[in-house]
Amino acid sequence: MKSQVRIAVIGLGAVGRGVVTTLERMQREEDSPFIISAISDSKSALIAQDGIDVAAMLARKAENGMCGDPALHSKDIVKDAPYDILVEASPTDVLSAEPATEYIKTALSRGAHVVTSNKGPIALYYQELSALAREHAVSLRYEATVAGAIPILHVLEHDLTGNKIHALYGILNGTCNYILTRMSEEGLTYLQALEEARKLGYAEADPSADVKGTDAATKVVILANTIFGKSISLNDMSITGIDNITDDALRLAAGHDSTIRLIGEIIPEKNIYRVSPHILPKSHPLVVNGSLNAITIKTDLAGDLTFIGKGAGSLETTSAIISDIFYIVKHTR
Amino acid sequence: MKSQVRIAVIGLGAVGRGVVTTLERMQREEDSPFIISAISDSKSALIAQDGIDVAAMLARKAENGMCGDPALHSKDIVKDAPYDILVEASPTDVLSAEPATEYIKTALSRGAHVVTSNKGPIALYYQELSALAREHAVSLRYEATVAGAIPILHVLEHDLTGNKIHALYGILNGTCNYILTRMSEEGLTYLQALEEARKLGYAEADPSADVKGTDAATKVVILANTIFGKSISLNDMSITGIDNITDDALRLAAGHDSTIRLIGEIIPEKNIYRVSPHILPKSHPLVVNGSLNAITIKTDLAGDLTFIGKGAGSLETTSAIISDIFYIVKHTR
Repeated sequence: MKSQVRIAVIGLGAVGRGVVTTLERMQREEDSPFIISAISDSKSALIAQDGIDVAAMLARKAENGMCGDPALHSKDIVKDAPYDILVEASPTDVLSAEPATEYIKTALSRGAHVVTSNKGPIALYYQELSALAREHAVSLRYEATVAGAIPILHVLEHDLTGNKIHALYGILNGTCNYILTRMSEEGLTYLQALEEARKLGYAEADPSADVKGTDAATKVVILANTIFGKSISLNDMSITGIDNITDDALRLAAGHDSTIRLIGEIIPEKNIYRVSPHILPKSHPLVVNGSLNAITIKTDLAGDLTFIGKGAGSLETTSAIISDIFYIVKHTR
Repeated sequence: MKSQVRIAVIGLGAVGRGVVTTLERMQREEDSPFIISAISDSKSALIAQDGIDVAAMLARKAENGMCGDPALHSKDIVKDAPYDILVEASPTDVLSAEPATEYIKTALSRGAHVVTSNKGPIALYYQELSALAREHAVSLRYEATVAGAIPILHVLEHDLTGNKIHALYGILNGTCNYILTRMSEEGLTYLQALEEARKLGYAEADPSADVKGTDAATKVVILANTIFGKSISLNDMSITGIDNITDDALRLAAGHDSTIRLIGEIIPEKNIYRVSPHILPKSHPLVVNGSLNAITIKTDLAGDLTFIGKGAGSLETTSAIISDIFYIVKHTR
């Protein structure tokens, strides 16, 4: 890759903001090769061939809510701005996966690499998108879509080569884990714990994607299709959420030194893809507390390996996106 | 790298045996590019340009204790046999690190890649060996030397790029963890638990390297020198083992829902490198049971990440060696 790497960032929410400020800091402190050549938010966009002045742009955004020119839009950036890597961090829509999918296709077709934190396109159109990336000899990376800061996709793709993965079990939704932890530790009812999660910003006003298990299931779909080479959708899955779990059930589990956790499950050899509450002993490695995520994989050589970390948060998602950017730079000559 | 990859394996203990049988199975089942071109045990060696018949070799070894010709030795293999990658799995000697260091130098100087499970050479001579590897444009890999099956070196080197690692805390010795787990769970005395660990093969006849913390400290040295770019030795470390921990101390900790674990510690910014027993709440992610290893890293972006897996065992070490071999094949053109 050229000595200077031009990056366009779509979306200036917490994640997009984390990415541009981190890249800017790296360039300032470590003389890294990155320049932000374009950026867009929901109302405007900005192109600067020689690199955007990030501090000035964020100040402008704080003042009038726009990062750049209101006559320019995300789609213009994706189509026409100069960039080597597109960071697609627009809001997630797991039903239509648009406009993110369109952005990703346009970028790949231009011969640019894409890094996305957007679950929709990867869950719904991975095969099509990865074929497009291959056709144009570019990379499509999506570490941020599963388990936040845990580099689970890197680990499964690269670090355990030679191992057969017999099964994967994971706590893939931090909101559910927070609710179950609070019910278990404080004896709260489901509704009390949900209300608390809402107040802390862990749960949306409409929490159904989290508590009904759909978000965790989307991550199971992504893992199944990208790592295990399957071709499944949410419709192929058995999904049970946590919205019918009672405080009585947790008290009963506690009596046996156990608790309840929402577990996503992949057993590739048996084509099992499932999200459901499990009763687990409190000493089980997957029993992590609060909004953490955790994943256990069962392998033939390495045995059981467990990875624990923050599943969400703008810095954590930024970490995953930045590591994908470095991966692309390192593996492109 | 050429379509056929010739591998020489030094050492035919549990690890060397695991490596050759796994490579042989991969070639049979998956048409992988590997052939075992040479192998040696403590008494003999064997060279076969077109690939060793692994089953026949192991049968011969079972019969007369030798894998090949008693007139040939490991050093002959390293010096003269045809190979692209040397897998150095001879017995570990962390004091002299010989003859492993000599083997590794010879192989690197020949322009061959090296994968080793041997802690000595990496703990004592990493800088010299990695300079030699650079000079000859080959790879030196050693994932198996720290935390067995946990791909911690891969993760730290590649998967978290962009993150600053502020600290690393780890359970790096499975034998100590087994002893402390049994003292804590069953109320055994230190000597009872040690005796049990010996019977199960977790502890050597002379267990001092494990229980006095030297083995864990050696892994701290490896991590400090390879990942954190330091240049330290065991002499720079503060090391306290578990041999003075009483069952009373564990009972006291249990009264506070806590337990004791032997923790290796690196805080690079403060030049802290230490191994010592810590009192930890039982719910702490590092409190794993039995002979497991666990490592927590504290990062600026990804937050805290914890990795748990088996720290020793021939299959687990084999997993690490095989992943290093694949890494070399993938990154050499």
